[in-house]
Amino acid sequence: MQFLLEVVEILTSYIRKTFDRSTKVLDFHHPHQLLEGIEGFNLELSDQPESLEQILVDCRDTLKYGVRTGHPRFFNQLSTGLDIVGLAGEWLTSTANTNMFTYEIAPVFVLMEQLTLKKMREIVGWPDGEGDGIFSPGGAISNMYSVMIARYKFFPEVKTKGMAAAPRLVLFTSEHSHYSIKKASAALGFGTENLILLNTDERGRVIPADLEAKVIEAKRKGHVPLFVTATAGTTVYGAFDPINEIADICEKYNMWLHVDGAWGGGLLMSRKHRHKLNGVERANSVTWNPHKMMGVPLQCSAILVRERGLLQGCNSMCAGYLFQPDKQYDVTYDTGDKAIQCGRHVDIFKFWLMWKAKGTVGFEQHIDKCLDLSAYLYNKIKNREGFKMVLNGEPQHTNVCFWYIPPSLRSLPDGEERRQRLHKVAPKIKAMMMESGTTMVGYQPQGDKVNFFRMVISNPAATRSDIDFLVEEIERLGHDL
Amino acid sequence: MQFLLEVVEILTSYIRKTFDRSTKVLDFHHPHQLLEGIEGFNLELSDQPESLEQILVDCRDTLKYGVRTGHPRFFNQLSTGLDIVGLAGEWLTSTANTNMFTYEIAPVFVLMEQLTLKKMREIVGWPDGEGDGIFSPGGAISNMYSVMIARYKFFPEVKTKGMAAAPRLVLFTSEHSHYSIKKASAALGFGTENLILLNTDERGRVIPADLEAKVIEAKRKGHVPLFVTATAGTTVYGAFDPINEIADICEKYNMWLHVDGAWGGGLLMSRKHRHKLNGVERANSVTWNPHKMMGVPLQCSAILVRERGLLQGCNSMCAGYLFQPDKQYDVTYDTGDKAIQCGRHVDIFKFWLMWKAKGTVGFEQHIDKCLDLSAYLYNKIKNREGFKMVLNGEPQHTNVCFWYIPPSLRSLPDGEERRQRLHKVAPKIKAMMMESGTTMVGYQPQGDKVNFFRMVISNPAATRSDIDFLVEEIERLGHDL
Repeated sequence: MQFLLEVVEILTSYIRKTFDRSTKVLDFHHPHQLLEGIEGFNLELSDQPESLEQILVDCRDTLKYGVRTGHPRFFNQLSTGLDIVGLAGEWLTSTANTNMFTYEIAPVFVLMEQLTLKKMREIVGWPDGEGDGIFSPGGAISNMYSVMIARYKFFPEVKTKGMAAAPRLVLFTSEHSHYSIKKASAALGFGTENLILLNTDERGRVIPADLEAKVIEAKRKGHVPLFVTATAGTTVYGAFDPINEIADICEKYNMWLHVDGAWGGGLLMSRKHRHKLNGVERANSVTWNPHKMMGVPLQCSAILVRERGLLQGCNSMCAGYLFQPDKQYDVTYDTGDKAIQCGRHVDIFKFWLMWKAKGTVGFEQHIDKCLDLSAYLYNKIKNREGFKMVLNGEPQHTNVCFWYIPPSLRSLPDGEERRQRLHKVAPKIKAMMMESGTTMVGYQPQGDKVNFFRMVISNPAATRSDIDFLVEEIERLGHDL
Repeated sequence: MQFLLEVVEILTSYIRKTFDRSTKVLDFHHPHQLLEGIEGFNLELSDQPESLEQILVDCRDTLKYGVRTGHPRFFNQLSTGLDIVGLAGEWLTSTANTNMFTYEIAPVFVLMEQLTLKKMREIVGWPDGEGDGIFSPGGAISNMYSVMIARYKFFPEVKTKGMAAAPRLVLFTSEHSHYSIKKASAALGFGTENLILLNTDERGRVIPADLEAKVIEAKRKGHVPLFVTATAGTTVYGAFDPINEIADICEKYNMWLHVDGAWGGGLLMSRKHRHKLNGVERANSVTWNPHKMMGVPLQCSAILVRERGLLQGCNSMCAGYLFQPDKQYDVTYDTGDKAIQCGRHVDIFKFWLMWKAKGTVGFEQHIDKCLDLSAYLYNKIKNREGFKMVLNGEPQHTNVCFWYIPPSLRSLPDGEERRQRLHKVAPKIKAMMMESGTTMVGYQPQGDKVNFFRMVISNPAATRSDIDFLVEEIERLGHDL
């Protein structure tokens, strides 16, 4: 127990430093350096036990060579920040160390999940919060659930007879959608060729007419259009597909509409921004990851389903050793058979506790603040020398995509040489950023666009001064490239 | 920060009480009672924030109405116990709050995962620990991976073209195997009818001749036998299928051999007991859950694959925004594209830390001790009045399955009335156990066998006195039924 308290001391000291801007975001080392054992930090496992003192040293080293994802200047991922109440919730969760499959061993957590899912469905806009849902180990699995459920709804015999029992089914999603839809189409036996990518407009939003044309084309070939994803907040551009127009087409052609709000779902908590998801209440299923925009510690992702019973019907196998019908309590609270998992980590408590501590209004304030910050960044750089926006117009989400153009490239004419040189700028700046450990932000190419920075803001600790810092740091590091 | 320390105080006090046998295992309430709000414990979420004092009360109440899975008398699940080093590891993990997809943001954890998986493969017996693997959110997902990879190995075109590109594929598994194999066959598009259940002997082990007969039968029908699971430690009986004999048949008919060691894989750490998995080195893939027999906090499950490259080939989609090829470090350490997940929780650290603290020998001692305890239980009750073993002979794993026969039934002749009455005994005793909160153990029917108790021991805190207590408690509660 003394050991545990010493670990807590290490952790609290780490947390304090994380929020201190004079601390580095990371202390970068290459894999081979860490594997060789820097300053005695030995990653190898051995037959004999280490002393508890050494274990404490291992804990310190693990944190030292890691990345401070809660640091106010960490912008690298959609999940950033470190909420203290959420963290406390996760510590309690691991102390309780139980499993979500039955009410029997997780009575409180099962009820919290049920109430929270209902609340989320109310916020989506389904009457009385009716429907179903489950927390899954991440957005990719939540999206996979949506495809499975859609298939079960229209072709329930696939559960017993396999894909051979169905006609050739096709799925539709934005060319900018998350790759998990593609992973699901491969894993579930549809095949990636039967996932049809939809064209997008200049802001990265699906063009509804392109969906309809492709649906008609698929039907002409004798294929069966089954499922459409509308992305609410794409990974790179933060684009929101026009859900209502997509929903019209889904209704017309009797297709399942899934809204992937893994990243953008949080905006539903904001009266100011939720209009970007208008039409979401027409979806058949919704993915929503509180561990992204809402700052809940990893992992916390929900799949919400409008029609009750489908999740159960799709996944239940009625294992007698877990879901005994002759228990003394109401066994409809044993929700494990709805899952594709057996054991399931308790992801609900930290989220429930944060909701208690912040209230709905607290989440709203957080989201509004992050979107204000991204507008601030956009306005700061849109006409700044050396910066060029990838998209025109205010960002829809907190994603701000831009190139930094070093002075040496500014006078070069547009063309292949400039493109090739510009393509190398972001990786170089990123590498220097990581080596100096001052901040972190992502970059990637997209279609025919060479590498650009994608700034995203979900970190509650970030302020305007951190945005200023990022911009100046990019200029400092990139100036002489 | 003060708040966090107060939470730690609540948690350490909870932990102390958990290890104190005079504390109840649980304080049972029905769902409606908890939903109504016992003693002011209000589960409902609201718009406005609660005070931090109230949050602390919520934390206390959550623990109060939960189940102490670390209690020395909690035997209800395959995952029990509360390892303090593992717990510290999980607290650190949630403080670091990062994601396994890239080396960039989880350098230390990615390397730990790599080294630990290699060590596990060495223990499985693959030369030099070669091969591949990944930690997944649980045994069901690990088993799902194995089916996906097998399909990719033999029919890689399914990834792009779907199941229509393959002939009718069939899978084989024990009638006693875990239901996740069935869930995988449904989810991945095989269909549960194409999962063929294998007969078992009197101890619940697959009969190899039955496998061969069913393979031949499938081929005769023109189907393609693809995949066989050998279970190392079935859920109810703890049976170990004869891997070598199954491997012979897999080789003969060119099928993928998966060993589901979710529950029994831990025995590989014991020189005394690992012979029960003889032949495991011939498997193409192995599921092994350290969160079960090895006492690692939930969730911690590994899927190990003998052939390198298959996981990557099967799942990779090369998303440019996450797996940029032009990073400054060796990007083969970015392992995220091998997963069906995108974000992936850090499940490795607690396990790595426990391994450091215990050494391989510490896990061995833990496992030997648990198996000794189950032998103790078996010997205690096998000839005890009122107890009847479900299986003859010493248990292979820590599962001990038995009926308790109350005095009122002992003189009843075998027959339908006795069966029906006996079927109700275990649920009644379990219900009383939960209401009194003294201990917890599972029960279920199996095939034509009416409800019996399934005792399992994985809890490092359990001693012989706890086994004695369980037996006496069953007698006390069941005596007058």
